[in-house]
Amino acid sequence: MGALLCDIRDSIASVTLSNPGKLNALDVAMWQQLQQLFSALSADTSLRCIILRGTDGNFAAGADIAEFASVRHDLASGMHYHNHTLALALQAISDCLHPVVAAIDGVCVGGGLEIACAADIRIAAPSARFGIPINRLGFPLAPGEMQALLALVGPAVALEILLEGRVFDAAEAKDKGLIQRLADDVHAEAQQTATRIARGAPLAARMNKQLARRFRVLAAPLSEEEMRAAFAFLESIDYREGVSSFLNKTPPRFTGS
Amino acid sequence: MGALLCDIRDSIASVTLSNPGKLNALDVAMWQQLQQLFSALSADTSLRCIILRGTDGNFAAGADIAEFASVRHDLASGMHYHNHTLALALQAISDCLHPVVAAIDGVCVGGGLEIACAADIRIAAPSARFGIPINRLGFPLAPGEMQALLALVGPAVALEILLEGRVFDAAEAKDKGLIQRLADDVHAEAQQTATRIARGAPLAARMNKQLARRFRVLAAPLSEEEMRAAFAFLESIDYREGVSSFLNKTPPRFTGS
Amino acid sequence: MGALLCDIRDSIASVTLSNPGKLNALDVAMWQQLQQLFSALSADTSLRCIILRGTDGNFAAGADIAEFASVRHDLASGMHYHNHTLALALQAISDCLHPVVAAIDGVCVGGGLEIACAADIRIAAPSARFGIPINRLGFPLAPGEMQALLALVGPAVALEILLEGRVFDAAEAKDKGLIQRLADDVHAEAQQTATRIARGAPLAARMNKQLARRFRVLAAPLSEEEMRAAFAFLESIDYREGVSSFLNKTPPRFTGS
Repeated sequence: MGALLCDIRDSIASVTLSNPGKLNALDVAMWQQLQQLFSALSADTSLRCIILRGTDGNFAAGADIAEFASVRHDLASGMHYHNHTLALALQAISDCLHPVVAAIDGVCVGGGLEIACAADIRIAAPSARFGIPINRLGFPLAPGEMQALLALVGPAVALEILLEGRVFDAAEAKDKGLIQRLADDVHAEAQQTATRIARGAPLAARMNKQLARRFRVLAAPLSEEEMRAAFAFLESIDYREGVSSFLNKTPPRFTGS
Repeated sequence: MGALLCDIRDSIASVTLSNPGKLNALDVAMWQQLQQLFSALSADTSLRCIILRGTDGNFAAGADIAEFASVRHDLASGMHYHNHTLALALQAISDCLHPVVAAIDGVCVGGGLEIACAADIRIAAPSARFGIPINRLGFPLAPGEMQALLALVGPAVALEILLEGRVFDAAEAKDKGLIQRLADDVHAEAQQTATRIARGAPLAARMNKQLARRFRVLAAPLSEEEMRAAFAFLESIDYREGVSSFLNKTPPRFTGS
Repeated sequence: MGALLCDIRDSIASVTLSNPGKLNALDVAMWQQLQQLFSALSADTSLRCIILRGTDGNFAAGADIAEFASVRHDLASGMHYHNHTLALALQAISDCLHPVVAAIDGVCVGGGLEIACAADIRIAAPSARFGIPINRLGFPLAPGEMQALLALVGPAVALEILLEGRVFDAAEAKDKGLIQRLADDVHAEAQQTATRIARGAPLAARMNKQLARRFRVLAAPLSEEEMRAAFAFLESIDYREGVSSFLNKTPPRFTGS
C-alpha cells in the first residue's frame, strides 16, 4: 500500500514517496497525504529545508492508473481529481515555506515528474528516467499542470515532452532544464545541498522563494467553458482505449474520437 | 520559381519549401501559399502530424530580398508585408491543429528560422546553419516576429542573435534552445518523431498544443505610434544601403540615419 | 578608491569597473557613477556599442559590504539603497540605447553579477566565478533585482543560485543561461563581438533592444506592504549576524529571527 514517510534530522525533513511494487505511483490517498504533510512541514518554522525522494531506487511513476476507473472516470470526477486532489498537493509543495530539494533516481514520469517540478531544486542520478507519456494513455496534460510545466521549461520543451511522449534519460532532462544537476550519489548530493541551504539565513531563503512566486506572470484563468473543453477527453473513446490498453499491456488504437 | 510541395502518407503530411537556386528563400507568393496550405492541413482532422522541411539540402534562407524593392519599399508596404503576409503565414503554422515537426538541414536563417520556430519540435542536421543576420541588411526584426522569438528563447538569446547577426551552427542553436535535437539523418529522425506523435491520441496532442498557446502571456499590443516607430527603418537611408549592398555583394556603410 | 574608467575608440566605449584591493566591489559613489556614465553614453548617438568590464582580472565582487553599516542599516536606508541607488544604475545599463557587451573574468558575484546581467551579451573567461552568495550574509535578493534575474534565467535557476548560495564556474554559468559564451581571451572576444555589432545598422540594433524591453511581461508592482516585507530583513538579527560575521570572517549562526 502507498504511503509517505517523513524523517526530520538537523532541521532538514526527508519526505519519501513509497508504493512498493508500483514504482511509487501515487493513489488518491497519497496525493492527499502529500498535501497534508507539506502543509504541516510548511508551518514548522524550525525547519530549514525539505528533501523529497522515492523509495527503492525510484522517484515516482506518477498516478496510479489502476485507480482511474473509480476516481477519474467522467468529467466531474476527472476535474475534481486534477483541479482539487493533484492541484492541492502540487501547490502545497511549491508554496511550502521552506526550500524543497528533489532527489531523483529511477523512474520519474507523469505525476512523479510533476511532483519533482514543484520542488525548488532537482538533482538526479544519471540513470534516472523522465517523461510524461500520457499521449499513449489517451489524454492531454491537465491545464493547471500544463501551466506549471510551461513556467518551468517554456513551450518548446513542454510540447516536445507531451507530443512525443518519449521517456528520456537524466542527461536529456538536464539539457531540457527539467533538472539542475546530475550526481552519481544523488542522495548524498541532495543532503549536501540541503545542508548548504540550511547554513544560510532561513528568513532570506523564505523571502527568495516567496518573491520568485510573487513575480510569476500567469495568463488569465480558464473560463468554465475552456476548463470543460480541456477535460472533455474524459468522455472520449480514445481515453478509455488508452487506459484499458495500458492496463492490458496491449498497444492502443486511437481514432481521434 | 518558388513553390510549396505537400505529400500525405499514413496521416502524416510533409510540407516542403522549394525555391531552387535561392536556398528556398520565400517570396510573397510562397508566404501566401504557406498560410493557405497550413490552414487547409489544420482543417483536415484525419491528419496526425505535419513535417516541415526544405528541398535540396536547405531549409530556407528567409525572405527573397530581391523582392524588397517592390513589396517592402516604404512604411505602408513594409507593414503590410510583415503584419499581414508573414504574420498570417507564421500564425497558420503555430496555430495549426496538428503537431508540426521542422526537419532542418543546410541554411535556416532569417524568415526561414522564423518558420522553423513556428513549428512545435525542431530537429536539425549537425551541419545546419542558423541566424537572423538582418543587422547587415539595415533593419530590425519586425515586432510580431520579435515577440515570437522572445517567447521561444528569451531576451538574452534573442538579442545576442539579432545584435551580432552571426550565422552559427546547429550545436550552438541547440545550446541556445532554438532547436530540440541534432540528428545525422534529420529526415529519418523527423519521420520517426512524427510516427511517435501519430501513435498517440490525436485529441490529446491537439489539446496540449492549444493549452500551451492559451497560457502564453503577452505584453499589451503595440500602439499605432509604437508600430510605426518599429517600422520607421523602412524610410531610413541605412535600410536602402543595407539591401542594395546585399544585392551588390559589397559591405554596407551605415551612418545611423 | 573605487572609480569607473571610460575609453571611447572607433564608436565603441569601454567602461571599466575599478576598486583595487576590493575585487572591484561597488560603493555607493560607484553605483551613482555607473548610472551617470551609462545615461551619458546612452545619449551619445555617435556610439555603436559599449563593452563593460572590470580591472585587474576581476569583473566585480558586488556591493561594498563594509559600507552596509552606514548606507544599508535600517528599513529606510536599505530601501533607498536598492530601490534607488542600485535600481537606477542597473536600469541605466539595461535601458541604454546602445548594445552592451559584458566581458567577464575573475570574480563576478552579487551586485557584480547583477551588473553583468543588465548587459545584452555576456562573455566570460573559463576561470570566471559566479554566484549570489547572500544567504550567508543574512539577506534575500531585493525585489527589483529578483525580477530582473527571473526575466533572464527563470525561476528554477534563480532559486538554485539564491537558495544554495554556491559560487560556481563559467561552464556552469553558461549551462544556467547566465552567460552566452566562454572565451579564453575574453577581452579580445568582447572586442570582436562589439566590432560585429558596430558593423550592423545602429538604428536596427537600437530598435531590437527597445522591442525586446517593450515585450517584457512583468507582474503587478509590489504593494507598499509587500515592499516593506521584502526589506524587513534589514531589521532582523540574522542580517546583522550575517554582515558582521562576513566582515569578521567567522561562520554566521542564523536563528531565523
